[in-house]
Amino acid sequence: MSAIKYRIAVDAMGGDYYPEVPVHGTLRALKELPGNFLIQLVGSRRAIEDELSKRMSAMRYRGYDKSRLEIIEAPQVILMNDEPAASVLAIPNSSIHVGVRLQRNNFSDAFVSAGNTGAIMAVSLTSLGRIRDVYRPVLTGVFPTMNGYCVIADLGANAEATVELLVQSAQMAVIYARHVLGCVNPRVALMNIGEEEGKGNKLTIEAYHELKKLREAGQIQFVGNVEGRDVFRGRKADVIIMDGFVGNVLLKFAEDIMPLLKDWQRALVKKGPPLQKVFAYFGKVLLGPLQKTLKKELDYQKYGGVPLLGINGNVTVCHGGSSPLAIVNAIAQAGKMVEQDIINKIKNQLTTS
Amino acid sequence: MSAIKYRIAVDAMGGDYYPEVPVHGTLRALKELPGNFLIQLVGSRRAIEDELSKRMSAMRYRGYDKSRLEIIEAPQVILMNDEPAASVLAIPNSSIHVGVRLQRNNFSDAFVSAGNTGAIMAVSLTSLGRIRDVYRPVLTGVFPTMNGYCVIADLGANAEATVELLVQSAQMAVIYARHVLGCVNPRVALMNIGEEEGKGNKLTIEAYHELKKLREAGQIQFVGNVEGRDVFRGRKADVIIMDGFVGNVLLKFAEDIMPLLKDWQRALVKKGPPLQKVFAYFGKVLLGPLQKTLKKELDYQKYGGVPLLGINGNVTVCHGGSSPLAIVNAIAQAGKMVEQDIINKIKNQLTTS
Repeated sequence: MSAIKYRIAVDAMGGDYYPEVPVHGTLRALKELPGNFLIQLVGSRRAIEDELSKRMSAMRYRGYDKSRLEIIEAPQVILMNDEPAASVLAIPNSSIHVGVRLQRNNFSDAFVSAGNTGAIMAVSLTSLGRIRDVYRPVLTGVFPTMNGYCVIADLGANAEATVELLVQSAQMAVIYARHVLGCVNPRVALMNIGEEEGKGNKLTIEAYHELKKLREAGQIQFVGNVEGRDVFRGRKADVIIMDGFVGNVLLKFAEDIMPLLKDWQRALVKKGPPLQKVFAYFGKVLLGPLQKTLKKELDYQKYGGVPLLGINGNVTVCHGGSSPLAIVNAIAQAGKMVEQDIINKIKNQLTTS
Repeated sequence: MSAIKYRIAVDAMGGDYYPEVPVHGTLRALKELPGNFLIQLVGSRRAIEDELSKRMSAMRYRGYDKSRLEIIEAPQVILMNDEPAASVLAIPNSSIHVGVRLQRNNFSDAFVSAGNTGAIMAVSLTSLGRIRDVYRPVLTGVFPTMNGYCVIADLGANAEATVELLVQSAQMAVIYARHVLGCVNPRVALMNIGEEEGKGNKLTIEAYHELKKLREAGQIQFVGNVEGRDVFRGRKADVIIMDGFVGNVLLKFAEDIMPLLKDWQRALVKKGPPLQKVFAYFGKVLLGPLQKTLKKELDYQKYGGVPLLGINGNVTVCHGGSSPLAIVNAIAQAGKMVEQDIINKIKNQLTTS
């Protein structure tokens, strides 16, 4: 066995389906992902071992390298609807606390969790702190687009934004797009309610001005304002900056589009004439492969997790409803954040700018 | 001929396809809509008469009642991309100015335009002014939902919101939903980034508090916070209040969903194997009727136009890309605003509250 290069702590008690999904995802990651990393499953040892032995009975995981998996005991669980602020004080030995603490004490290099976003953020902030000169950490997600993907920041880490925060979000998101997603010179845009300079509210008008300065300094390729319709088209920008309130509303709106259309069609079929039911059935069968490809392209799980950029550590948040595949992809992405030393790249960028 | 009950000025020079669309929509409205109203087509007399005679050659409009159509000359045109502020000063005899002025001088009861939204708002504000005690006018649109519709305010009249403005938006949108759309006791929700009380930014946390007070006073049926995913589902609210920045981003995002999915599918079919093309073709044929129903349910043109509530007059803004049908529906809606005396209902509500 070659030497372990880095260690990723995975929250075994996070998300809507724990410990099944995180444990299953971990086993798949160990089998499928390249690279010599160690996974530290954090949570109730008993629950994790039960789940592991269940999974072991499936042939395909028998061959995984046990020396690359550690179990770290965390006796408490923060639930998805616990209040972040309260949980930080009241549940100090939760899997989130233990996972983050491993990193602070240099026993781990990254933390991946599908748990309570607010709690992950609060614990990361109190335990790991921010990178020097960072105002606030930012949730930086990846949306699928017709041309590939688009990095969106902030998805809701901060309900209240400032000009400085938007500018920093742009700088951090560019580093992420460049070094983790491999977009060499990302086009950065500002979400606004009109394309021309001077459109928007006080925040976006001033942010436009500051982002223009960064462009003139050769730091980022700022392409100006974009509007709501430009997110999924992907023609104009690779990174779109917006305040966390707008980002969160948009994320929750966008996530539900495909399920909504499906439900809506189903309701219409139910109300419609019987012959339409038959037509719809065969139509769906014929369109099946295409729909499947479209669904795959639109799948947020491709990118697995959303890094909390600006934290003095590697913390990746996954959707509460994540599948094992999403966990695998989040682990891969967290690994890339470690390999590319994103924290130091952000540090250098922010202190030299 | 019975007496004319009210007069609606229609901007013949507004929208992406003027004068065709407004003139065509006007003729359809005169034929199809009940009620004894007069339409005042505002714009270049020559362009309007040319268009009318073109339409006249189509049999079905020959029978319209000429005494119900007037042409009001307006020699100037404000273009879709003119700056609102500049156009107000520089183009004082535009169709928008003339149409709004008719109302101020009591020669008209409502104004419908598919023109430059910013200019319509600026001209309405300077010429008609606000209803007493109104802070700012609000663009109040109707989104289709699985259960029917949902009134959204503000769609972008104000890039910057205040607590007072959000509360007023709620009061005005309720009057609109009740008396124009016929929703007797609309459920009012606040767009936010979490459902619980206390979630959000400073603006929404405080607005929640004030809306709760209105509920306790028995004025509105406030049901709390909703999130992005709740807009189209239509299960939780009939009216959703948000600041104009969020509303505008969401509107532009939502409008493009169906065209986007169509384009996306088309691109996938192009890239896919030849057999998939054949499958997709027949699949689409079979799903055609269902898709058509869905498209119809999702069509913003059902509601035609967006009233600018809070202006001391009836002003309805249509989408720049409106079809004649959208103009017909906007005229119908503007008529209802006049019949229901919405301005006075808003006046009474705001002064007694």
